[in-house]
Amino acid sequence: MTRVITEADIDEIALGAAVLGTGGGGDPHVGSLIAKRLIRLHGPVRMLDVDELTDGDFVIPIGGIGAPSVSVERIQAESELLAALEAIERAVGRKPTAVMPIEVGGGNSMLPIAAAALAGLPVVDGDAMGRAFPEAQMVTYHLAGYGPGTTVLVDHHGNEVVSRPVDGGWSERLARAVTVEMGGGATMIDYAYGGDVARECAIPGTLTLAKRIGAILRGRDADGRELRDDERIAALCADLGAVRLFDGKVADLQRAVDGGFTRGAAELDGVGSDRGGSFRLDFQNEMLLARRDGELAAVTPDLIAVLDLATGMPITTESLRYGARVAVIAIPCHDKWRTSKGLETAGPAHFGYDVEWVPVERLAAAAEREVA
Amino acid sequence: MTRVITEADIDEIALGAAVLGTGGGGDPHVGSLIAKRLIRLHGPVRMLDVDELTDGDFVIPIGGIGAPSVSVERIQAESELLAALEAIERAVGRKPTAVMPIEVGGGNSMLPIAAAALAGLPVVDGDAMGRAFPEAQMVTYHLAGYGPGTTVLVDHHGNEVVSRPVDGGWSERLARAVTVEMGGGATMIDYAYGGDVARECAIPGTLTLAKRIGAILRGRDADGRELRDDERIAALCADLGAVRLFDGKVADLQRAVDGGFTRGAAELDGVGSDRGGSFRLDFQNEMLLARRDGELAAVTPDLIAVLDLATGMPITTESLRYGARVAVIAIPCHDKWRTSKGLETAGPAHFGYDVEWVPVERLAAAAEREVA
Repeated sequence: MTRVITEADIDEIALGAAVLGTGGGGDPHVGSLIAKRLIRLHGPVRMLDVDELTDGDFVIPIGGIGAPSVSVERIQAESELLAALEAIERAVGRKPTAVMPIEVGGGNSMLPIAAAALAGLPVVDGDAMGRAFPEAQMVTYHLAGYGPGTTVLVDHHGNEVVSRPVDGGWSERLARAVTVEMGGGATMIDYAYGGDVARECAIPGTLTLAKRIGAILRGRDADGRELRDDERIAALCADLGAVRLFDGKVADLQRAVDGGFTRGAAELDGVGSDRGGSFRLDFQNEMLLARRDGELAAVTPDLIAVLDLATGMPITTESLRYGARVAVIAIPCHDKWRTSKGLETAGPAHFGYDVEWVPVERLAAAAEREVA
Repeated sequence: MTRVITEADIDEIALGAAVLGTGGGGDPHVGSLIAKRLIRLHGPVRMLDVDELTDGDFVIPIGGIGAPSVSVERIQAESELLAALEAIERAVGRKPTAVMPIEVGGGNSMLPIAAAALAGLPVVDGDAMGRAFPEAQMVTYHLAGYGPGTTVLVDHHGNEVVSRPVDGGWSERLARAVTVEMGGGATMIDYAYGGDVARECAIPGTLTLAKRIGAILRGRDADGRELRDDERIAALCADLGAVRLFDGKVADLQRAVDGGFTRGAAELDGVGSDRGGSFRLDFQNEMLLARRDGELAAVTPDLIAVLDLATGMPITTESLRYGARVAVIAIPCHDKWRTSKGLETAGPAHFGYDVEWVPVERLAAAAEREVA
């Protein structure tokens, strides 16, 4: 099915991607401005289903790397996106035929659309995480045993770094060190593979999913019914099979840019039906660990998203503020992350959290039993 | 003039390069073992004069980057040298025709000879510093306005990083960050240019100079006369126009690997004719600043070398030990470093030393007048 992304689609995709981005993936607003500008200049972007990719395609995942705190203040120049595409073509000797989000999260859902508009290429309706993750090896390609291949980093100074790391872990280490040196943010291409590998690895339909989420949060459900402000979070949870973990007010917040990441934690005091409860969120770019009254409520690789309690608008780790009234929801991650390789790659132990991963739906069922 | 470097030449070149390396440039002993092994396996290495290079040559400066403290424990594998040469050829699309030391210092005088033996290429009798310096942009190419070009870093894990930094300063920043991540040491190619640029920029004859220094320190002067142990340092100073700054014993030593460098300082108590005096050496990989009784005695870009008082053997910043009895000598640097661009690039202010550069020979003359 041939579809196009127009300027009018961007806000809904960005909104949904901010939910799937679980707080990270770069600033969605900044990303949406770039995407809209480039669609205005170069026309709508053709969107390909993952299964439309042919073996002859060369699929380029492109996005920003670095601390979201930097992405707010740093607009990827068009020249930077073009330089990255040119660098991968020169380094590999193969012409890109499609771009793809490496993660359907925040600004990183927008940059591939922007790059596609700029280069006159289609964008793939899929990504390599089904969410956002903080580290470069946390991709479905890695889970399937594919290395990062030839990777590209470019910055706004005009520096270009092309690496052939031995594996995904080394790709992350080298890229992070270079990104920190480049000022904390850069444009990255990695896991650039032929259409056959992209078909095998990409999680399909995630741009479409983001758009559906965005539409709900803007007040229109899948059947076109109008939603009141206070119905939206419930409608979203129903649509996604998500769990509403906690309603609360940010009572304490630590956040710092450290080693190319935004790291920190937030403490919430319960409001409404959660009054009297306490909740803690830990993040490294993305929300990774949620605990209610000290008990595990949800943990990576399941998705933890923070929404404005009144409007349902997603809140990034960077834009979270003291006193904000929020709802925390959790969405079951894609099954690829629920394998032993998936949990080893992006589960709690990798981030140093001393908890066992339990599927968020099972945690929720247990919590309900306790209440009942 | 066609000349060759045989296994028998290596020890003298390494010894002289350790003097010109002013304490840095990587461990000369480790480097000499690699060079001897590869000459034994692949035969002697043809040495080209700088003015023998033709415009059609593609001259590859190759060496180690990182903290000398790491170079002692890390032997550049043959595979690493070959991988670097292959990476530059693939990235630039041009076949190397000669290798060259980026610096005639320590192990970095040896690695190009080793690489030349391995790849069946000639080595250039010259380098881009006329000594060793700690940072990648401190090369004569930079002084002449040439950028780093396409640069290559490879490590023993098999990682390869090819950069196109916008200038020499960025090359240093990016390469250092990557090197730290690679474990503190890596093989680097930068300032790879055609023979025309190499002819313009290289400081000629520095491998031959290193060999002459090595011969003197092994007890044979330029006329073939045998030298007693206690005559060697004096003969060396006479040959190089060097100044003997201080004889002393290491009384205090701070040294740490920090940010991809070995940094520190040594305090000496005077012995012999310097009894009662005190002396301080500051280093960042290389010896950079020498002060006698608090007064400037020599400072970068002039060369400061530390020799064993009894044998004349050069001592690297890494092998300097508490209690060692040493002679500190200073050698005037090449005139290219005595220009305003040279001093801006590698003078005391760049390293944060709050002293004005004064030519070592003028400092020595002033000190003599004071004594007289």
